[in-house]
Amino acid sequence: MRHTKVKDLLNSTTTLQEVNAKGWVRTFRNNQFIALNDGSTINNIQCVVDFENTADQILKRITTGAAVSVTGTLVESKGSGQKYEIQVAKLEILGDSDPEKFPMQPKKHSLEFLRENAHLRVRTNAFGAIMRIRSVLSFAVHSYFQQKGFVYVNTPIITGADAEGAGEMFQVTSLPLDNMPKNEEGNIDYKKDFFGKHTNLTVSGQLEGETFAMALGQIYTFGPTFRAENSNTSRHLAEFWMIEPEVAFNDLDNNMDLAEDFIQYVIKYALDNCGDDLKFLEGRLLEEEKSKPQTERSEMTLLEKLNFVLENNFKRVSYTEAIDILRESTPNKKKKFSYIIKEWGADLQSEHERYLVEKHFKCPVILFDYPANIKAFYMRLNEDGKTVRAMDILFPGIGEIVGGSQREERFDVLVEKMKVLGIDEKELSWYLDTRRFGSATHSGFGLGFERLVLFVTGMSNIRDVIPFPRTPMNAEF
Amino acid sequence: MRHTKVKDLLNSTTTLQEVNAKGWVRTFRNNQFIALNDGSTINNIQCVVDFENTADQILKRITTGAAVSVTGTLVESKGSGQKYEIQVAKLEILGDSDPEKFPMQPKKHSLEFLRENAHLRVRTNAFGAIMRIRSVLSFAVHSYFQQKGFVYVNTPIITGADAEGAGEMFQVTSLPLDNMPKNEEGNIDYKKDFFGKHTNLTVSGQLEGETFAMALGQIYTFGPTFRAENSNTSRHLAEFWMIEPEVAFNDLDNNMDLAEDFIQYVIKYALDNCGDDLKFLEGRLLEEEKSKPQTERSEMTLLEKLNFVLENNFKRVSYTEAIDILRESTPNKKKKFSYIIKEWGADLQSEHERYLVEKHFKCPVILFDYPANIKAFYMRLNEDGKTVRAMDILFPGIGEIVGGSQREERFDVLVEKMKVLGIDEKELSWYLDTRRFGSATHSGFGLGFERLVLFVTGMSNIRDVIPFPRTPMNAEF
Repeated sequence: MRHTKVKDLLNSTTTLQEVNAKGWVRTFRNNQFIALNDGSTINNIQCVVDFENTADQILKRITTGAAVSVTGTLVESKGSGQKYEIQVAKLEILGDSDPEKFPMQPKKHSLEFLRENAHLRVRTNAFGAIMRIRSVLSFAVHSYFQQKGFVYVNTPIITGADAEGAGEMFQVTSLPLDNMPKNEEGNIDYKKDFFGKHTNLTVSGQLEGETFAMALGQIYTFGPTFRAENSNTSRHLAEFWMIEPEVAFNDLDNNMDLAEDFIQYVIKYALDNCGDDLKFLEGRLLEEEKSKPQTERSEMTLLEKLNFVLENNFKRVSYTEAIDILRESTPNKKKKFSYIIKEWGADLQSEHERYLVEKHFKCPVILFDYPANIKAFYMRLNEDGKTVRAMDILFPGIGEIVGGSQREERFDVLVEKMKVLGIDEKELSWYLDTRRFGSATHSGFGLGFERLVLFVTGMSNIRDVIPFPRTPMNAEF
Repeated sequence: MRHTKVKDLLNSTTTLQEVNAKGWVRTFRNNQFIALNDGSTINNIQCVVDFENTADQILKRITTGAAVSVTGTLVESKGSGQKYEIQVAKLEILGDSDPEKFPMQPKKHSLEFLRENAHLRVRTNAFGAIMRIRSVLSFAVHSYFQQKGFVYVNTPIITGADAEGAGEMFQVTSLPLDNMPKNEEGNIDYKKDFFGKHTNLTVSGQLEGETFAMALGQIYTFGPTFRAENSNTSRHLAEFWMIEPEVAFNDLDNNMDLAEDFIQYVIKYALDNCGDDLKFLEGRLLEEEKSKPQTERSEMTLLEKLNFVLENNFKRVSYTEAIDILRESTPNKKKKFSYIIKEWGADLQSEHERYLVEKHFKCPVILFDYPANIKAFYMRLNEDGKTVRAMDILFPGIGEIVGGSQREERFDVLVEKMKVLGIDEKELSWYLDTRRFGSATHSGFGLGFERLVLFVTGMSNIRDVIPFPRTPMNAEF
């Protein structure tokens, strides 16, 4: 008899049929009630064991974490909290779980402890929910772009181009690290390396993505990106997944429209498809915040926050307006900011972004038209000659979730900018080909997927929303 | 006025409205007819220029590769080959394309030349089609698993676990390669590296995926994997995308059913959604094969081959039966194989796989129950004590497209096997936890995504179905 998933059993429309379920014991109460979970849903199915006719050796082995197969009749439950339960006729222990040794006992574990057990934490309610939501959000990303006719592009992970300067890079090599071949000048002979040159892990697929957008019109990437930066914060990972759409003929306004519509779509998709998991995480968050002083608690519950983002347009504010707001703000005047905003041109720190989003506007904010000299070389210079068509989307509790821009489509202006910044024109000759041959206005953005998952799940540490986090000094598993 | 995509214009249900289209000139005939493409479809829209009332300086700039914006009336076309065309009222050159310099002129280019111009080849009909099909196939992969309730898992790319031995690995480091720190014993001091240990690029997400399957039930990965193997063949890449489903409570038969159903689903999805692109590639293949001797040409066209896979079950053959067939085969007896099959236990080479698939069975074949000693340590040992519950799926023209197995769920048997093979138990202690706590039958497989794209597009070199191929001595872009 083929087993039925717990989710399907709980959604069953008929009862009294014989069913088989397989899963892991979450709890076993009164020598009688198994809460069985198979990962298909956060909800367990109650399996009622006929303990009087079950051998003690078997009952003893029904422990938290054990894998079991139960066969019996699906009936309406007399107990509260569940619609159906299984009256067990046959129980088989598939795999034991020694209660003295299994780390995931049904009690509260610290998030730190669970991180160290990333291969087991997914057996808890919270991490099961987070990982299901992450998966559904991934699919929402693909669904959104595919419906709109975007082409999914797998830009390279190992890259010989390291000119973009988006961040510190990891090196990739197959040379023997303890005996590097040298050339005649005494330098490392990368000609002997696997690719015949020095290679790194990508920090962004944007430049390659642009070459595809200038042929296929609308493209998006969704893949891993890397930063070798020693940032031990709750918002940074050394390995994370990024989504980078790029659209020919889109200007910055189209780009903002796309980003806002996209984010609202994926959040709505999660609300529509992850109700049980989100409800659980909402409760988790409320519980967690009980230990905080009243002033630090969220004004909205998790679901309220998600719905708020759907129902309100993101506030679009130019960098110049933002500087004015910040300069006049109480924390700036009272010198509560670590970095006091004095004049136009200052780079915004996370404290300023948070003030704008969480205190001043109290909604997602799109900042645009930043000073050219604090932004990347490929961004479209405005007619004022000092700002570029950049945009950042800032989210409450998360900070920057999207960074994007209209790209500089003018060959001469782009090359001049590269010269000023010392970026090797020959290295990026292939990129410049997009401006040499059939150049046109185009725009795109990057969205850090884990920051989106962080927002949707209400978790506060980015290490808790990726299966196996990579951070400084940590590459376990 | 917002532009309309060429695909939507060609699918329009009304005419005579004013429209704007933006794209790249594919050809410009008789100073009058622009074939305009914007990547949304392989089909161009014909734009008829009023050349008598258009300045010569503008007409001269309508060259292959130039980006243009045309505004005019959508009318039924009098010419053959297209339903609609645009009577151009206004034409704007967005970006020039010097015909002396633009490499993608409308003539036949060699695949080698196009590979060197991977950033521009996507502007050709063939590569536009391939990349759109690749994208649709990716979405089919996600759709299939998500519909069935699988959870998408992003297993780590950078890994500290290098015990699996699936292939040569690339090293990842942030240490200065020309000045590696040494410890007291004179060895490289990996404690000073970013992760505090030696790390590599993943060769497979299977082991991490198993830990998630044993909590969430059904999971799949779809991400980049790496092999630092010096294989300069038309079937190998150093960086490729792999799909790895893993299902708790599935045995090998369920695993074969899943793989077959999955492959048929994604091929059907491509047939249903990529008609124009597949038709073009079918023609391309016919053209290419004209230069081959009759005996080397395919018996079926591309679409026939794809439909054949849908309509016929994959032939399931045990390794033992396969050896018998091969031993008795003409090429074996006549010593035409490079490796003559003498006895049970021999590892099958690509020539043997091709014989089975292309000559003997003439359909996709699933080989199963291989000798234990030619397969990986984690595969379930059969009761005969000498074979394991492994399976490979072999495709005509492609060879191995899937490799999978039922996993050894018995802790003691698995540990014993690791000891024999010298695999460090401590290194994989987290993996063994799946067998320590709530172990159960489970199975999974890996499908090399590019091999699938190769099969569906009818291309013959794997470098032509990934945007920017990584192979020995090649990491351009």
